[in-house]
Amino acid sequence: MDEFRETELKKRISESTIRRLSLYHRALEIVEENGSETVSSKELAKIEKLTPAQVRKDLSFFGSFGTRGLGYPVKDLKAKIARILGIDRVWNIALVGVGNIGSALVSYKEFARQGFKIVKLFDNDQRKIGSNHKGIVVSDIKNIVSELSGSEIEMVVVCVPGSVAQFVVNDIVKAGLRAILNFAPVNLKVPDDVFVRNENMAMELEYLSYALVNNHSKNRVK
Amino acid sequence: MDEFRETELKKRISESTIRRLSLYHRALEIVEENGSETVSSKELAKIEKLTPAQVRKDLSFFGSFGTRGLGYPVKDLKAKIARILGIDRVWNIALVGVGNIGSALVSYKEFARQGFKIVKLFDNDQRKIGSNHKGIVVSDIKNIVSELSGSEIEMVVVCVPGSVAQFVVNDIVKAGLRAILNFAPVNLKVPDDVFVRNENMAMELEYLSYALVNNHSKNRVK
Repeated sequence: MDEFRETELKKRISESTIRRLSLYHRALEIVEENGSETVSSKELAKIEKLTPAQVRKDLSFFGSFGTRGLGYPVKDLKAKIARILGIDRVWNIALVGVGNIGSALVSYKEFARQGFKIVKLFDNDQRKIGSNHKGIVVSDIKNIVSELSGSEIEMVVVCVPGSVAQFVVNDIVKAGLRAILNFAPVNLKVPDDVFVRNENMAMELEYLSYALVNNHSKNRVK
Repeated sequence: MDEFRETELKKRISESTIRRLSLYHRALEIVEENGSETVSSKELAKIEKLTPAQVRKDLSFFGSFGTRGLGYPVKDLKAKIARILGIDRVWNIALVGVGNIGSALVSYKEFARQGFKIVKLFDNDQRKIGSNHKGIVVSDIKNIVSELSGSEIEMVVVCVPGSVAQFVVNDIVKAGLRAILNFAPVNLKVPDDVFVRNENMAMELEYLSYALVNNHSKNRVK
């Protein structure tokens, strides 16, 4: 991809486009595992339940190599999307709050598979501090600022109760980190140059309850 | 809301609108806890980091009562959104696969808080079958079709490995259920009248890696 196109892509990309890039990347992994070297927009659309037109529109940013009859080169396209998403490398991650969800995430295979490596754990519970989770010793949350500052860690997953999440996040920001995945059910305040994604699994169930109550056919929920 | 508006809303609603309705509902809970009886589009927008224009557009479906200077009536609007989302009632839920993520979800407070009640657990591991998780005895997955058929359960959370997820989902569909929240990293095939939501926590981290790599300011990632 030439510089111009890359700049254009960055300018026009939206949250939902980023989500679709993740979906295309996963779809390309499936296609690659099946041994295909090329893939059509129709196939990609089918795997991720999108329209072929949407796929072609999104992928047009990556150059014009989706040629009629041949389709997209799987390996090349996957590498380009990985580069855009920043998953062509390993990210070192800290996780704060080794409770039910936190412990489960330490073993969550999809993180590791995409290069997101949990290397540090923090908790405030004396019974947990010093204990070993999948080879990582739990550190005292009191030391979070000094242990994160200047470390190789660039993202933090926050799994603490809502009542303390903002304090934890203030420390993460103080340590100079700029990317937080938040599982606490609160809206966090962060400076403009810090990115927060909120994960609330109940919202996915709300989508399902909406669908059931309104008896939507899938063709209507776009 | 009169019948006409309700029909219009259903016709025009998109996946991202449903997501925003969930966000408005959460924001209204916060406003209500703070003791406010009315709320402006500006306040709602600030809580959920949306634009006031977007909030006004979405809420216009609910009638014209967001009057200038007064704002929206919190309790009334919250009740209407809850009805649309189907969270003005309790949903009984089964969870299949009591592993790391599954166990964590049994204790996940946000499910219960929004009326999503896990009442049944299934696993195929003989060591887990018959054991008790938060008062629920784990059932043998062999009996899933008979135990779900005609039961009070309307949604299923699937936390089994990707290699067996499709088989489990086939059984859920056979039992007549139509709403599945899938944590397995695979794309499931279901009939047209069955709703599946895929939860992949790595995708949220991909959004963060995208933001860091491309050094986006938040004003540009919409």
